[in-house]
Amino acid sequence: MKLSPALQYSHDLLKQVVTPGDTVIDATVGNGHDTLLLAQLVGKGGHVLGFDIQTSAIKATTTRLEAEHLNNVSLHLTGHQNVDQYLNEPLAAAIFNLGYLPSGDKSIITTGNTTIEAVEKMLPNLKPNGIICLVIYYGHPGGDNERAAVEKFTATLPQQNFNVLEYQFINQVNTPPKLIVIQKR
Amino acid sequence: MKLSPALQYSHDLLKQVVTPGDTVIDATVGNGHDTLLLAQLVGKGGHVLGFDIQTSAIKATTTRLEAEHLNNVSLHLTGHQNVDQYLNEPLAAAIFNLGYLPSGDKSIITTGNTTIEAVEKMLPNLKPNGIICLVIYYGHPGGDNERAAVEKFTATLPQQNFNVLEYQFINQVNTPPKLIVIQKR
Repeated sequence: MKLSPALQYSHDLLKQVVTPGDTVIDATVGNGHDTLLLAQLVGKGGHVLGFDIQTSAIKATTTRLEAEHLNNVSLHLTGHQNVDQYLNEPLAAAIFNLGYLPSGDKSIITTGNTTIEAVEKMLPNLKPNGIICLVIYYGHPGGDNERAAVEKFTATLPQQNFNVLEYQFINQVNTPPKLIVIQKR
Repeated sequence: MKLSPALQYSHDLLKQVVTPGDTVIDATVGNGHDTLLLAQLVGKGGHVLGFDIQTSAIKATTTRLEAEHLNNVSLHLTGHQNVDQYLNEPLAAAIFNLGYLPSGDKSIITTGNTTIEAVEKMLPNLKPNGIICLVIYYGHPGGDNERAAVEKFTATLPQQNFNVLEYQFINQVNTPPKLIVIQKR
């Protein structure tokens, strides 16, 4: 057994929480790796809502899903802070990859304000034992501000309603991502 | 699926890492709960080394093991920093519960210096993928100093030889324990 890196651990948890038929969110679809995983986990009877502000991300993800003949995903070219316009049902899980689009424009980054707004809008829909995974890349300019804002916000979530877990490797030189998981009690 | 509390997560990991025949360490036997788990995991062909500085802990653990007819444990009434006098073989896993003995004298606490000395003496024997779990209770006087010392020490372990994971709930009022796991690469 090897300890899972943060991104892998978020997937380990999603696989345990998400069941066929669920509604889930990929808040930052990027190149579509997590979207694909979620689409497979919820199955034909489930629904994935995907958000990204970059056309290239939506295109790459569309291509990836088509290659797997998956049509249970709604992709939205808009910021995840607008999630309330699209989410009307109970939510089993959501995942955020915070930072910039890998192999994309590194100046386009997620920010603490809109990330927190998106999480706040998802929390009322979160099912018991449902989770929101925040995989936080913070080695880039602006990344540390977002990390600090997300930590501060999640640390104040009321413990009678939520458990907030922090999972990170602390002896690494190259600031690997850290994971914060919010679970509805 | 519910996220495991820190102590439970340390047990989840031990169950994945420890196999029959292994040598393992309970560095703070206390009331013997972890000692019993380890003795069951390593089986008749394995060996558990247990340490505690309090006679009451050694007695309670002896009673617990006898009730389960387990005789694969060597209990030592001495500080875990003396582990090098007893450990001569490859080590699959070790666990520390840092703080005071539950239902015991709360003024007798583990301390950063001796905890770190014990870990340093165990590391050369740790097998590839072997783990050292440090379950850190730090709500008591002196606890925060030990927590900080252990964090500082483990964060500097060379990443080419070890991965160091931090696992903790960050929105809890009553300072639940945090877990640090060192895994040999």
